Amino acid sequence: MKLAVLGAGAVGRSVAELAADYDHEVVALADSSSGVVDAGGVDVDAVFERKDDEGVVGDGDVDDVLAADYDCLVEATPTTLDDAQPGFGHVEAALERDRHVVLANKGPVAERYDDLRDRVAASAGEVRFEATVAGAIPAIATIEGVGADRVTAARGVLNGTANFILTRMAAEGLNYEHVLAEAQDLGVAEADPTFDVEGIDAALKCAIVANVLHDGGYSLDDVDVRGITAIPGSALELAAEDSRTVRLIGEVDEDGDARVAPRLLPENDTLAVTGTQNLVQLETTHAGRLNLSGRGAGGPETATAVLADVDRLADPE
Amino acid sequence: MKLAVLGAGAVGRSVAELAADYDHEVVALADSSSGVVDAGGVDVDAVFERKDDEGVVGDGDVDDVLAADYDCLVEATPTTLDDAQPGFGHVEAALERDRHVVLANKGPVAERYDDLRDRVAASAGEVRFEATVAGAIPAIATIEGVGADRVTAARGVLNGTANFILTRMAAEGLNYEHVLAEAQDLGVAEADPTFDVEGIDAALKCAIVANVLHDGGYSLDDVDVRGITAIPGSALELAAEDSRTVRLIGEVDEDGDARVAPRLLPENDTLAVTGTQNLVQLETTHAGRLNLSGRGAGGPETATAVLADVDRLADPE
Repeated sequence: MKLAVLGAGAVGRSVAELAADYDHEVVALADSSSGVVDAGGVDVDAVFERKDDEGVVGDGDVDDVLAADYDCLVEATPTTLDDAQPGFGHVEAALERDRHVVLANKGPVAERYDDLRDRVAASAGEVRFEATVAGAIPAIATIEGVGADRVTAARGVLNGTANFILTRMAAEGLNYEHVLAEAQDLGVAEADPTFDVEGIDAALKCAIVANVLHDGGYSLDDVDVRGITAIPGSALELAAEDSRTVRLIGEVDEDGDARVAPRLLPENDTLAVTGTQNLVQLETTHAGRLNLSGRGAGGPETATAVLADVDRLADPE
Repeated sequence: MKLAVLGAGAVGRSVAELAADYDHEVVALADSSSGVVDAGGVDVDAVFERKDDEGVVGDGDVDDVLAADYDCLVEATPTTLDDAQPGFGHVEAALERDRHVVLANKGPVAERYDDLRDRVAASAGEVRFEATVAGAIPAIATIEGVGADRVTAARGVLNGTANFILTRMAAEGLNYEHVLAEAQDLGVAEADPTFDVEGIDAALKCAIVANVLHDGGYSLDDVDVRGITAIPGSALELAAEDSRTVRLIGEVDEDGDARVAPRLLPENDTLAVTGTQNLVQLETTHAGRLNLSGRGAGGPETATAVLADVDRLADPE
């Protein structure tokens, strides 16, 4: 397929770099301030070289990319809350032209799922969003396979940064501030870690899963959120004495309630994955519990989910 | 879709019972000696009541079922080796009529994959077989999503009976014969447990995964197989002293070599699932390692995989 890629961060870049390996062609690409369109196929290496040297991917802009002749728009700009702009507008523009959209940006699916479905209903294009929940882990595809009606609950470790910090606190007996600084040095936590450590990123993923399981109706405001910043190192030490540990668990329960909170678990519990790993656990009506774990973030990992979604789309007419 | 179900064991029965919940209709059904066809929809409860009372599902036979007007044949008769008959013939008959086939029977995909592909190439029907590897776990769908070319190796715990026995031996310090008898009492092991404990069932699954990853060429003969019957209880005790345990691991490695053998693992290794759980671990080119675990056997669990496959098929013309 011909892809237009919006966003030139780690995910957008990896999608553009891996597209050829999936027999797709990038015909347009934009970062936040510039864009490039080439109907014959964008020279991806040259474009990113130019971005590294000159700070722009080309002489055009986002509107040029949105107007290009593509089959599928990959929306990988940063997640924004509330009206989820400008991401939502990008998706809207593609659907109005009956083009497919694959999202890595969580905003439109977490914050405006119902609006999104209205736009999809009026379009010949489809929208997919595997990459928005737990990176490379096929959470959405597995829910689709089982059937959303037959998944009674979902829970998991949905944020690798928070999980890395909790794992290190428990393993080394260190406090939150110390481990956060270490995670920032390693590039596992951002300079402003609020989204990850306060549970907001995990809560957005919960809202997305809740929307899939319950046919819409959820946004960040519907998720009860508690992060990990208030957990003292001593709590993890006490837990360890009892062969337990603490993980930040996102959950959509049997009643459809969505929440993110630290939870005490047996050390050998399936949910107690370590480091930056993510895990998604699904309770099903006829097939018991399914566990899916792997890398929940990273450019190539998330791009793998994006490109799997592209392959699941109907071929253009 | 209109389904014809061959096989009235735990899996065939569950497929027939759950089909309506997936908005499919069973129009024909056979066990090993009898068959029933009803273009208006088979009364599934009545048919199984008759089977329980009279030992037959109807007054017809398998040929009547194969000749019925169905969209998809579900082949859930017992797995056979070598020529994989009669299962292979059933699949062949459906494909010759341009009908879809979903397999729970491992024989045709493990033993005659290349023959099967020839038949598929000449048909408008498709063949799917998620249920043949690790029951409810979406192993094949996940490989398809990542792309077989981008999965460099696969390994896992592919037989719940063997895993149950090893778990109990380690937990209770009991020997193989003792635990086998217990497993047989619980219905976890069959009266003749050879297929499970000698690693043959796991090896068939390895052959299937190897065929998917390497575009055919494998059968049971290509898998190096060692089972668990020769493991002394003392070996598990020694392993436990070193915080290790033993699991029967099936593997298709980076060189395309397929094998099943007991392996020493750290007790907390992701592969060391307990009881009758199965786990499939995929190594991918761009997305690291993915782990999928859940119930690897059971009627409703395997039927869930069968019916997910049915939903992945193209709608009939």
